[in-house]
Amino acid sequence: MFKLYGFPVSNYYNMVKLTLLEKGFEFEEVITRPSQEDDYLNKSPMGKIPCLEVKEGPISETNVIFDFLEDLSPDVPLYPADPYERAKVRELSKSIELYLELVTRQLLGVVFFGAPADEQLNATVNTQLDKGVNALNRILIFSPFAAGEVMTYADFMLYYTVTLGNMATKKALGRDLCDEMPGLAGWLAIMDKNPLVQKVNADRDEALKAMAG
Amino acid sequence: MFKLYGFPVSNYYNMVKLTLLEKGFEFEEVITRPSQEDDYLNKSPMGKIPCLEVKEGPISETNVIFDFLEDLSPDVPLYPADPYERAKVRELSKSIELYLELVTRQLLGVVFFGAPADEQLNATVNTQLDKGVNALNRILIFSPFAAGEVMTYADFMLYYTVTLGNMATKKALGRDLCDEMPGLAGWLAIMDKNPLVQKVNADRDEALKAMAG
Repeated sequence: MFKLYGFPVSNYYNMVKLTLLEKGFEFEEVITRPSQEDDYLNKSPMGKIPCLEVKEGPISETNVIFDFLEDLSPDVPLYPADPYERAKVRELSKSIELYLELVTRQLLGVVFFGAPADEQLNATVNTQLDKGVNALNRILIFSPFAAGEVMTYADFMLYYTVTLGNMATKKALGRDLCDEMPGLAGWLAIMDKNPLVQKVNADRDEALKAMAG
Repeated sequence: MFKLYGFPVSNYYNMVKLTLLEKGFEFEEVITRPSQEDDYLNKSPMGKIPCLEVKEGPISETNVIFDFLEDLSPDVPLYPADPYERAKVRELSKSIELYLELVTRQLLGVVFFGAPADEQLNATVNTQLDKGVNALNRILIFSPFAAGEVMTYADFMLYYTVTLGNMATKKALGRDLCDEMPGLAGWLAIMDKNPLVQKVNADRDEALKAMAG
């Protein structure tokens, strides 16, 4: 049985958890925080979560885990079969990660962890966000899913990027991504109805409640 | 025939060019600078190079192009066939990109483009580089290739990351990656003997000479 290291408040963790659920894999959740302990670095070399342990060993990096699970279980596809369409899903997923997730992530310290407001950081993030949003608006399809007619990994990457990132941009920058990305709000409403998304979110909300004491 | 957009001084461009040569694809090089022009953004949504245009349309992001070319031409493999080993090559390649390439890239403005020395930037890069180098040292194999016995995309990602990045870290930080990454120097010597690497590098050096006027 697979072991999934991480915790259900992490957006990357939830992307992988949703994938495992969609594909019907059995897995054990091993509650783990990012760590620089030697033992964990041997599983995940930057100490990041999530990390998936399979019979051959550990795998880190969310999109790498996506690709591995797809190789193992192509019968519940989350990539298109056609190589070009598959490439476009990978391009979209990577663009979401680099130009939206890693951009909005810079705000989490201020928004959620009590770091002092930082106007210089906000200005940097605003500029990066303009560019990222423009890039994504060129390649997002939303008909109804992020990359077209069927649900793919790009939907999982975008959903957990936006549900966390948009809280941060609203609070720190006064920017609502739903106002800036046509089709985003309607697509979020579709994703919110997915029963496995609801399951992952219920676990997340319970963990958040427990953290708040 | 494929069109490869970019220019031969770019390290990402050269990773893809080397892949096309290794796999024996015919392609035309379309000399292109990063651009925010609408026409180019329709090919590469962030305006970055390289971008590969195939008969179905454009593809951006170097590792996405790797995966596409592998799907098209599995008979000249640059990934292992086994799904777990393939995942480990993808994990290594992504770690090289995020934790070494994007880290050293921050120095290029100062080292190559006349930006003023910036001690705060150097301190940030030093910290990030410590972490990235430690992470990579855990997963690099160098026996003799980056991910093990056969040459893979991880070698291409690492080679053009290090040949550029190490010039930057030496000059800006006084750090030689060959001193910090056991096996790197010997592996570089092996890669330098690859005739297609030599061809890509000769084109790069000619372009550099032309730029210097």
